[in-house]
Amino acid sequence: MSYARQLLDTYPGAVGVDAGLLASAIDALSDCAQACIADVDADLSEQNLTEMVTCIRLCLDCADVCSATTAVLSRQAAYDLNVAGPLLQACIAICKNCGDECERHARHHEHCRVCGQACRVCEQACRQLLDAMT
Amino acid sequence: MSYARQLLDTYPGAVGVDAGLLASAIDALSDCAQACIADVDADLSEQNLTEMVTCIRLCLDCADVCSATTAVLSRQAAYDLNVAGPLLQACIAICKNCGDECERHARHHEHCRVCGQACRVCEQACRQLLDAMT
Amino acid sequence: MSYARQLLDTYPGAVGVDAGLLASAIDALSDCAQACIADVDADLSEQNLTEMVTCIRLCLDCADVCSATTAVLSRQAAYDLNVAGPLLQACIAICKNCGDECERHARHHEHCRVCGQACRVCEQACRQLLDAMT
Amino acid sequence: MSYARQLLDTYPGAVGVDAGLLASAIDALSDCAQACIADVDADLSEQNLTEMVTCIRLCLDCADVCSATTAVLSRQAAYDLNVAGPLLQACIAICKNCGDECERHARHHEHCRVCGQACRVCEQACRQLLDAMT
Repeated sequence: MSYARQLLDTYPGAVGVDAGLLASAIDALSDCAQACIADVDADLSEQNLTEMVTCIRLCLDCADVCSATTAVLSRQAAYDLNVAGPLLQACIAICKNCGDECERHARHHEHCRVCGQACRVCEQACRQLLDAMT
Repeated sequence: MSYARQLLDTYPGAVGVDAGLLASAIDALSDCAQACIADVDADLSEQNLTEMVTCIRLCLDCADVCSATTAVLSRQAAYDLNVAGPLLQACIAICKNCGDECERHARHHEHCRVCGQACRVCEQACRQLLDAMT
Repeated sequence: MSYARQLLDTYPGAVGVDAGLLASAIDALSDCAQACIADVDADLSEQNLTEMVTCIRLCLDCADVCSATTAVLSRQAAYDLNVAGPLLQACIAICKNCGDECERHARHHEHCRVCGQACRVCEQACRQLLDAMT
Repeated sequence: MSYARQLLDTYPGAVGVDAGLLASAIDALSDCAQACIADVDADLSEQNLTEMVTCIRLCLDCADVCSATTAVLSRQAAYDLNVAGPLLQACIAICKNCGDECERHARHHEHCRVCGQACRVCEQACRQLLDAMT
């Protein structure tokens, strides 16, 4: 069981959303942020560097948005939909864009395949959480 | 002239938005993130700690959202409105909430007055940028 | 297998350190950062709030140091020991302090027990990596 | 007067270090983080992209280390020298490396000149603070 889930299960108050969905989203966001950071570095090592620029930019944005959302969702104060809602929407949008771009490179670059998968899982987990919150 | 503005003025490509508005938003976001982090620490030193909990939580979220938005706006790739739009909306919402709460404590705690001001400036700068982008 | 490990295994260049140790450290750092953020929020919900202030402050620092180190270690450029070395030392120190403080509260607050465990695992993983790098 | 300085001047407790040095370091760290993020994006837009890879990697690390140090120094709990000391050393090392690399490109790329300046100012401010703390 992930730390995110354990911390939700020991939270000294009510958790506003289904703990399973929330923990899955937090874990997926945290994984996606790390994968994107690592993929940028891998992209920078490739021969066809100019073709990787879009992927690098999207991964950089994706990492920042996912990191912030990991933090906000890890706090119960987050369940102000005026904040968590658009934040999740930003995540869904950047994970979609970044996942699409990574998949374009997946055949040639295994690291992009891995990162693209992290983006897809994250996009999906954020969608499910947003649906449950609204 | 801030580094943000200098870097926009030396950008080796077209900047998608008015550079003045963008630099103001980046600077305000960066200032607001730092002010919120410092205000959390100041709040934790106050006697009436239980009354400061809401302020602490909002400042924590505000710092994270503003930091991520500083980073995303600092990249030209950000001008995908599907990402930057909801991100700015999340900023506006959390800066509004956090600024309101800080102002409630401003008479008794000078640091909350200062932080509240950083939130107001940031909220305003994000609104102006979002208006210019849409 | 974690994304961190998968991305190391698909890295288009040489990885400067044992990939298993490195992936373990990255995963532990990422987990610890999230656990600390969540524990701050849980601490803020406790009745004995004034007794939790030290724990909150340490968790805040621990989260920031671990997040930055996750990112730096996820890049191969990190293997400049002049940067990664002190960064890992800062992690080890703050994870030690934060883990000690969390354990003091572990009997009364389950969330502190969980967070303390994340700190211990992280401290250990950072020590092993630092040993392997020097 | 910067928000960092205003928040130190209204801190409800003793500040462990000279407030002027501390505020200067916090402001320089925050500026340097933003400059490095923006410079990465500018580098990615250059024709001689392969020659910019080292600069990009160093800027990415520099941004992460400076952001975390901004946060830790913004909290009074930071004045545990076991944590703040190595963190400042990591900053000094990465700002030195990143500043050197940016200066190598300064004649051809104005944005690197600006970013290099932010790194130098930050390195200097961190050195002065570390001297004052030890």
